[in-house]
Amino acid sequence: MYKCFSLSIKNNIAHLQMNRPEKRNSMILDFWTELPEIIADIDAGSKARVIVLSSTGPHFTAGLDKSLFAFVSEADREADEDTRNIQSGAAFYHNMTQFQTAFTSLEACRIPVLAAIQGGCIGGGIDLITACDMRYGTENSFYTIFETNLAMTADVGTFPRLINLIPEGVVREMAYTGRNVTATEAKTLGLLNRVYPDQGSMLLGVMEIATEIASKAPLAVSGCKKMITYSRDHSTKDALDYVAIWNASHFKLTEVLEAMEANKADRPGHFASLPKRCV
Amino acid sequence: MYKCFSLSIKNNIAHLQMNRPEKRNSMILDFWTELPEIIADIDAGSKARVIVLSSTGPHFTAGLDKSLFAFVSEADREADEDTRNIQSGAAFYHNMTQFQTAFTSLEACRIPVLAAIQGGCIGGGIDLITACDMRYGTENSFYTIFETNLAMTADVGTFPRLINLIPEGVVREMAYTGRNVTATEAKTLGLLNRVYPDQGSMLLGVMEIATEIASKAPLAVSGCKKMITYSRDHSTKDALDYVAIWNASHFKLTEVLEAMEANKADRPGHFASLPKRCV
Amino acid sequence: MYKCFSLSIKNNIAHLQMNRPEKRNSMILDFWTELPEIIADIDAGSKARVIVLSSTGPHFTAGLDKSLFAFVSEADREADEDTRNIQSGAAFYHNMTQFQTAFTSLEACRIPVLAAIQGGCIGGGIDLITACDMRYGTENSFYTIFETNLAMTADVGTFPRLINLIPEGVVREMAYTGRNVTATEAKTLGLLNRVYPDQGSMLLGVMEIATEIASKAPLAVSGCKKMITYSRDHSTKDALDYVAIWNASHFKLTEVLEAMEANKADRPGHFASLPKRCV
Amino acid sequence: MYKCFSLSIKNNIAHLQMNRPEKRNSMILDFWTELPEIIADIDAGSKARVIVLSSTGPHFTAGLDKSLFAFVSEADREADEDTRNIQSGAAFYHNMTQFQTAFTSLEACRIPVLAAIQGGCIGGGIDLITACDMRYGTENSFYTIFETNLAMTADVGTFPRLINLIPEGVVREMAYTGRNVTATEAKTLGLLNRVYPDQGSMLLGVMEIATEIASKAPLAVSGCKKMITYSRDHSTKDALDYVAIWNASHFKLTEVLEAMEANKADRPGHFASLPKRCV
Amino acid sequence: MYKCFSLSIKNNIAHLQMNRPEKRNSMILDFWTELPEIIADIDAGSKARVIVLSSTGPHFTAGLDKSLFAFVSEADREADEDTRNIQSGAAFYHNMTQFQTAFTSLEACRIPVLAAIQGGCIGGGIDLITACDMRYGTENSFYTIFETNLAMTADVGTFPRLINLIPEGVVREMAYTGRNVTATEAKTLGLLNRVYPDQGSMLLGVMEIATEIASKAPLAVSGCKKMITYSRDHSTKDALDYVAIWNASHFKLTEVLEAMEANKADRPGHFASLPKRCV
Amino acid sequence: MYKCFSLSIKNNIAHLQMNRPEKRNSMILDFWTELPEIIADIDAGSKARVIVLSSTGPHFTAGLDKSLFAFVSEADREADEDTRNIQSGAAFYHNMTQFQTAFTSLEACRIPVLAAIQGGCIGGGIDLITACDMRYGTENSFYTIFETNLAMTADVGTFPRLINLIPEGVVREMAYTGRNVTATEAKTLGLLNRVYPDQGSMLLGVMEIATEIASKAPLAVSGCKKMITYSRDHSTKDALDYVAIWNASHFKLTEVLEAMEANKADRPGHFASLPKRCV
Repeated sequence: MYKCFSLSIKNNIAHLQMNRPEKRNSMILDFWTELPEIIADIDAGSKARVIVLSSTGPHFTAGLDKSLFAFVSEADREADEDTRNIQSGAAFYHNMTQFQTAFTSLEACRIPVLAAIQGGCIGGGIDLITACDMRYGTENSFYTIFETNLAMTADVGTFPRLINLIPEGVVREMAYTGRNVTATEAKTLGLLNRVYPDQGSMLLGVMEIATEIASKAPLAVSGCKKMITYSRDHSTKDALDYVAIWNASHFKLTEVLEAMEANKADRPGHFASLPKRCV
Repeated sequence: MYKCFSLSIKNNIAHLQMNRPEKRNSMILDFWTELPEIIADIDAGSKARVIVLSSTGPHFTAGLDKSLFAFVSEADREADEDTRNIQSGAAFYHNMTQFQTAFTSLEACRIPVLAAIQGGCIGGGIDLITACDMRYGTENSFYTIFETNLAMTADVGTFPRLINLIPEGVVREMAYTGRNVTATEAKTLGLLNRVYPDQGSMLLGVMEIATEIASKAPLAVSGCKKMITYSRDHSTKDALDYVAIWNASHFKLTEVLEAMEANKADRPGHFASLPKRCV
Repeated sequence: MYKCFSLSIKNNIAHLQMNRPEKRNSMILDFWTELPEIIADIDAGSKARVIVLSSTGPHFTAGLDKSLFAFVSEADREADEDTRNIQSGAAFYHNMTQFQTAFTSLEACRIPVLAAIQGGCIGGGIDLITACDMRYGTENSFYTIFETNLAMTADVGTFPRLINLIPEGVVREMAYTGRNVTATEAKTLGLLNRVYPDQGSMLLGVMEIATEIASKAPLAVSGCKKMITYSRDHSTKDALDYVAIWNASHFKLTEVLEAMEANKADRPGHFASLPKRCV
Repeated sequence: MYKCFSLSIKNNIAHLQMNRPEKRNSMILDFWTELPEIIADIDAGSKARVIVLSSTGPHFTAGLDKSLFAFVSEADREADEDTRNIQSGAAFYHNMTQFQTAFTSLEACRIPVLAAIQGGCIGGGIDLITACDMRYGTENSFYTIFETNLAMTADVGTFPRLINLIPEGVVREMAYTGRNVTATEAKTLGLLNRVYPDQGSMLLGVMEIATEIASKAPLAVSGCKKMITYSRDHSTKDALDYVAIWNASHFKLTEVLEAMEANKADRPGHFASLPKRCV
Repeated sequence: MYKCFSLSIKNNIAHLQMNRPEKRNSMILDFWTELPEIIADIDAGSKARVIVLSSTGPHFTAGLDKSLFAFVSEADREADEDTRNIQSGAAFYHNMTQFQTAFTSLEACRIPVLAAIQGGCIGGGIDLITACDMRYGTENSFYTIFETNLAMTADVGTFPRLINLIPEGVVREMAYTGRNVTATEAKTLGLLNRVYPDQGSMLLGVMEIATEIASKAPLAVSGCKKMITYSRDHSTKDALDYVAIWNASHFKLTEVLEAMEANKADRPGHFASLPKRCV
Repeated sequence: MYKCFSLSIKNNIAHLQMNRPEKRNSMILDFWTELPEIIADIDAGSKARVIVLSSTGPHFTAGLDKSLFAFVSEADREADEDTRNIQSGAAFYHNMTQFQTAFTSLEACRIPVLAAIQGGCIGGGIDLITACDMRYGTENSFYTIFETNLAMTADVGTFPRLINLIPEGVVREMAYTGRNVTATEAKTLGLLNRVYPDQGSMLLGVMEIATEIASKAPLAVSGCKKMITYSRDHSTKDALDYVAIWNASHFKLTEVLEAMEANKADRPGHFASLPKRCV
């Protein structure tokens, strides 16, 4: 039982939901430990082939809970005040990298993560959804780099990832003004893949896409995820070289033949799952 | 008094205007020394919180003035002809890096720079506006990599920055054909954030955005600018690490609390300005 | 005479056509040796100023021919089975880098390559067109990362290049689901520069663009191609420095003056062609 | 109680010893989980200011235990043979990155790790000691990239780190021939900081250095470690920028003043310890 | 007249001396503005072909003057205390990057800088000499990363450059222990090119080397400096490409022929000087 | 029959000798085409497991032949003078990258290349030997970056590679002064692995090392070469990841078991050769 999430796994699809709607799913301290644990558990145990991340209530998430603002710079509870003061920069840096690691677990896990967003996706919410593979939203969803409105610079991943997702000029405008971006604008900008009329139809639609993904060979899908992330962060030359050496071990003719036969017979293919992690 | 610009600072907004409309604001030798001086002066003295760069006359700018074409390869006036010939490559390289530095000053300064563009934005104009944070244009504005039409390869910054702003295939078409891009197309491509019917409404609109930006905490806005530029040029991993360590020194709880109170009371926040540069 | 291509050169435009429509222009072993040979020959001999790559039949290309699937991991025909087994990873890696080199020749050659795409552009077809400078398509053209449907991870260049051309979220959706993207969607995403009603009008349109490009100074166009590719794979700072030193040797005042005079007189400019390669 | 190590912490110095001398301290499966756990525990709890890593018996370590050779490619115990075959590349890659992570924990922890090496340091031993901060050896110690003698390419970290420690030509000779390098040669090459006559004098000497390090301000020492590792992997420009922003939060005038006073009074300084990790 | 330096230029050699021996040439605020001004002036005006940097008194330099320790975090004199507190991180970062820029001017200038070091080279002295091209020392010279002894992490350039000059294990030992390195050790490590018995013989020896350098073609020497610095910070592939395009503009056959004739006739060559900077 | 080389292959060792001693093995135009052809032929056909590169006569090589100096900037023989003038920068760049590619073939081939150097290794000779895996020299051998003495900046690979092989301060001194480095100095600097009394004993010694290398599993040795070169040009993190995925396809348990048995029985192992290249 988690404090911030509920989780169900069915048909190789893990559905992870934020479940503190009464607090607008703000990210409290537990959030940051639960999220990476859940993701690592699914991934290491090869318990699903795709993850859908959605939320409850009128808003996807309000971002970092205010209880964390004071926490981050002075986390060493056992130290006296003078010491905590000297440690403050080091503590902030450490805590922030831990928070970042929580979101990076979405990017690092071997299977795709699809975000289904309703209502407000605010502050840390942007960091969260940009670490997912794809984003789908309701018509009434909106997107805000709210940190500037609170005299902060977004720091759990917004800029390093958003800069790759939407035009740079809009990233800057969103960041400097703290303004809302609508679902329609987000779709045009490339942030969302699709916009749905409401949360119900969105979940149906996203589950359909997830089902399609779950029907493919997991090693191939997993390879795609790794290659896309790698390509984003490396030069063309390095990425080309990497995909060649990756496939030298991951390409399996038996899987290809099975896929061909399954396609021909219009039946689901039977593919090897990802290896469970043993170390 | 500047030869190529007029400058006014009001309400924390610096309005910098190119003022040689009769020469279509072509970039003469003075342009390249005046621009970085003005920007450095505003930035070092913390004299404004945002810069709006606009122009006068029917066209934003015609780009490099033709008087510079001969100059760039043989700038060492005191040398004899043989020596100048031997020095030509070295002189060209030096002069070009100086020109680039002038535009890079827009990117390097700590506060946002908003470009408001009317009519033609030609050749060096593209280099200029891509070094700004955001771009806004009139309906009749148009954008041209004109260098190819003059048997040159654009060299003051067009490609290194434009490649990050609009689809690569369009960068190539613009460069190889030297064709005009309309305001509407530029908006769709992501080059412009917004299109306005005319220069008057554009300046009003851009000043409104500038006012919004000037109301935010300068340290936070400045952090956003740094992070976005850093993220564009570094891997996700490096950018995540950098933003964590940046905020370890720049995040200030007192500013956050002031912002919260101000938001609640619906009044402007009172924030520390950027430190004046002393060294 | 080539097995997979026909080639004609006229008015400084090389028109290269895939000519195995009955096999949906699938990429057989010859394809991978013929393509780089043709490109290198045009480039080294300075035989054209632009290349148009089109296809024949209802579909642009079906991608890798199935005959290659078994080939790639066990190419050393002279070795016994045990040895081939031990060599399999090394052989796969080598073959794949050779295949990649074939497509990279399009990117590495000094003149622009324009792809004109009709019908299906499937699997290896995506790798092929992303290595071209610009892409134009017919209304009925469609684009598919088909490898996932065959339990493979695309490996001849799709991800390293596509990630730079269209929004990351869509790259991921295309890769994980193997779904088709229509011409209209491809245009909106930035993959295509223009959509034409049919192949006839497309070839007319693309030839017009090619003609425009062929009328510019080849050294300038070639410089643009190099700079854009370089900028895509390097930081802003490195790319700025590179373009300055590039132009220190490639900028030629005589070419500029000729271009100005030609523009004034509304006549074609007479420009130096690219040097023939001698080593 | 650990299977492969014994650990004692005294005077802010953690002494970690490999304690399977009868098996020449070969790295069995437990080794790879115990090592990162121990390091993380010391680091997170701020339990020491420096770590000394030594060994027992005639040899420092014989490297990877042979029991692992078969394990690495087929770790998913629950899968059937066909599946394991398809998964083999993926399993190998995963397991190897886990092994690498174990050694990288030495580099990633916030305090210096000093290796004190006697006798043979073989195969995986090279990977291990190159992930430490400094290396000290006995006169009879020797160093071997043994993997080549076993028809393998070293893969837990030897090359990525050794290439930065000794001349490239010697790295290559060691790798291609699998030959031993003596302590004297290792000192000349820069691999060892100092050579001691025997293990007893070495441990005395290394503990003296460790004591010296433990007397310095932990935040300063930790900053040095981070900066050196960062500088090794980044350009001069990026590393300069990073150290400036790092110190913006970590430089503490009170610590400096305390250090000055302590130096003057020739007494130990009283410095803040590293913050305990709370997330 | 400078406060921290005396300068003489003779036979194309600029001799720059630190001249506050009574204060052990500690780096006061003026030091940081004077140094880059002097270097830029020599470089822009092409006033010398090589710079020799030496010092006076028993010690080369004691590093940063203590007067700067408080200054760096609160430089904005006009601000009130609360504001200065909020600005402290930003002020520190800015000031430190300015200090770094002062040393980087040695690396960035177009001509070689030779450091001739006597006695103690402490703290900031390491940052200073690592930014020079070559280092020569007296037998009694010694080298210390003293910052750790003052509870600081060296931040004006020590690690980013030293890591490229001496074995990593020794950088770490010097940094963590703050110990002295002797001239002999420094020579063995590669930090010094040569050791001289005393300052007199050192200055004679270094001037001889400087004279040799000044006799070569300045464009060629300048190209070497640029290429070596570039190669240090880029991949082999990028550096190869850069040197090819650099020489495309800087290689001058007339200079080569003059050099050959001069060599043959055993007379000094007459070479073009570096172009004076005009922008 | 080659104009610049003689080649013999015996016991899996290819011995490649420069054979124009009467011209001090200067690098004429044929040299640049013959070298990469020979290397590619050995490599693609898997004709040897190691290459020894030696020379004849009193000197290893005098570097680039003077006949090339004029050639490089005006290689397009068919063009008229005006055109050649406009093309000069482009032609120089192209030719130089071709020359570089010739030397890079030594680095890119899958098997180790050992250089055995007698007498003078001058100018282009430095570029040549730094592209080899290891360097061995006679007592009377010497090493000179001679280009500076000819008013040139070395451009076929000296700096990009030498900077990784010997201390930066010495690279700079060699480059700026054009002075000779003796064999003893070269050994101390790390440029040479070993010094032999004369060419006869050197060839015996180097052949012994080559024989040792040829006895190892070719796939393992080849993997080492790739990993070392990759590690040199990538960050620690990227290199670790790469070696893990490389071995996922190249590690073969059967080879390991054969190596173990062979070691035990003190007999040569029977290993798979590198796959012949088929594409």
